Amino acid sequence: MTTEAQASAPRPDIRILTEAQLRGVVSLDLETIDVIENGFRALAEGGVVMPPVLSMAIAAHHGEVDVKTAYVPGVDGFALKVSPGFFDNPQLGLPSLNGLMILLSTKTGLVQAVFLDNGYLTDIRTAAAGAVAARHLAPDVETAGVIGTGVQARLQMQAAHLVRPFKRCLVWGRDAQKAKACAVDIAAMTGVEVAVMTEIAPLVAQSQLVVTTTPATTPLITADMLHDGVHITAMGSDQAGKNEIAPEALATADLYVCDRVSQCEVLGELRAARAQGLMRHTPPELGQIITGVAQGRTDLRQITICDLTGTGVQDTAIASHVATRLGDAGTVISA
Amino acid sequence: MTTEAQASAPRPDIRILTEAQLRGVVSLDLETIDVIENGFRALAEGGVVMPPVLSMAIAAHHGEVDVKTAYVPGVDGFALKVSPGFFDNPQLGLPSLNGLMILLSTKTGLVQAVFLDNGYLTDIRTAAAGAVAARHLAPDVETAGVIGTGVQARLQMQAAHLVRPFKRCLVWGRDAQKAKACAVDIAAMTGVEVAVMTEIAPLVAQSQLVVTTTPATTPLITADMLHDGVHITAMGSDQAGKNEIAPEALATADLYVCDRVSQCEVLGELRAARAQGLMRHTPPELGQIITGVAQGRTDLRQITICDLTGTGVQDTAIASHVATRLGDAGTVISA
Repeated sequence: MTTEAQASAPRPDIRILTEAQLRGVVSLDLETIDVIENGFRALAEGGVVMPPVLSMAIAAHHGEVDVKTAYVPGVDGFALKVSPGFFDNPQLGLPSLNGLMILLSTKTGLVQAVFLDNGYLTDIRTAAAGAVAARHLAPDVETAGVIGTGVQARLQMQAAHLVRPFKRCLVWGRDAQKAKACAVDIAAMTGVEVAVMTEIAPLVAQSQLVVTTTPATTPLITADMLHDGVHITAMGSDQAGKNEIAPEALATADLYVCDRVSQCEVLGELRAARAQGLMRHTPPELGQIITGVAQGRTDLRQITICDLTGTGVQDTAIASHVATRLGDAGTVISA
Repeated sequence: MTTEAQASAPRPDIRILTEAQLRGVVSLDLETIDVIENGFRALAEGGVVMPPVLSMAIAAHHGEVDVKTAYVPGVDGFALKVSPGFFDNPQLGLPSLNGLMILLSTKTGLVQAVFLDNGYLTDIRTAAAGAVAARHLAPDVETAGVIGTGVQARLQMQAAHLVRPFKRCLVWGRDAQKAKACAVDIAAMTGVEVAVMTEIAPLVAQSQLVVTTTPATTPLITADMLHDGVHITAMGSDQAGKNEIAPEALATADLYVCDRVSQCEVLGELRAARAQGLMRHTPPELGQIITGVAQGRTDLRQITICDLTGTGVQDTAIASHVATRLGDAGTVISA
């Protein structure tokens, strides 16, 4: 068939990497945290195109799939990330969260790589974002607290410890056995003393940094728990109705920071606060704090909260970072 | 690391297919047309979840990327399709349109296959949709006309000929050389006599079926060109501002049918008509005509128009069809 556009150049090869191969290429370290920080910086500096998350529910199978993407000027590739969450999977012996990332050329739209990461890259870019928030909003951390006992509870503490080498960690979870297992893992990952708490209030009271990593739909942290100097990062699963921090706590804080305001209004803590008529102002974004466009913490006694819903910019940042480190890993497919 | 959800079952292998391998697995034939027709039927029968298209423009590189998906009850997999269009690519010797489809399990969200099709599956599912429209709205076709000279001009005539074995084909394009090349190809593909027309009006006048396949933003077919019995399918590229059929022509037709009303309002011919205050009613969808829920053509002399913007259901239908025919084609990646 004669086509009107005579293609003369061959398409470049496509690299396919599995989760195991990706784990060998990139890990949660200071370089990854810097890569994600640069993503937030780019988001604040303008020129980023980041459409709203595409979300599809498959109620019949207790599942949903989210798709995120973002174009970042100056970065050669852009990621398109597919995150399915199917919550009956554990009954089948499968993890609930899976998915992949595709890296495409920003110049030609051609597929460069497919990262069959089962959510691994999301895990580390999410943890890295928590570390970026801690770096800019939690100046002095001797004790870090984590609420929730899943993969992110572990990774958030690992990442936070890289930028704020705290001496002690406190863990709270609904299930005491899971909290204990989580504490053992965090101790092994960070080398610090880790204790399991049976109540949230004393965990917050003793911590200078608290990270919430749950799918809670009724607030876990209330305004009365806040104390001078505490920083809280809320990064729990961002499904409809999610709410980890009480609206009054958001309003009480000296500074509330979003990763992306337009997302936090829909998927983040801001949603519930706005629904109660609170937080009518437009909060600053983390990238604006990083670049100095917006004012961050100005006093050690201030109470700060950062709301992380996860952005396509983080995905483009981590996927592009992976691309620079591939070496000869993975399977090459000739397009 | 101890994770809270102990995964005991291994993830199934993932199949990766290139465009060349996919061309060996599936082609534009009556079976493909039936598969797409069943997709339209499912869309009308309810239970389909089809979120709005995710669209991101990368203006700096004259590019855009669209993502479509749909869950169809009763189908084991759902497709997520990534369609980049980068319009400076021909200067680099590369085609403008590329992309891939991912097939995921509707039960677990696990990735089943990655089809690196460079748009091939989109090409055939789009042509098949044209044939479905012809089957249900163009009862008697002796001469078929096509406006535009690209890949879809060829494939639309090939597909239409499978369901309506017309004797003669007319081609119009802005570029006479391209129109001639297109005519040669259509003659070879269908075996019918094909003539190049220098004006659109006589092409429409002599045809019982007309398919428009252009990126026009000012109407090519006007109300005065319509004649008794003609059916027009508008399937040209669905970018912002696209308009192939004059609003007055839409309003003049006895029946105007959408593939999906919510998409045609934004991306289809309906947008321009509504902007002029015309076509205020909710038109029927092609699936409703197929299932008999809405009335189709009731008289050979009626003028009918079908507006095809392309749906995620078509992508899920074609990708699932491919999955049933894979045999041992492609590369197997152990997740």
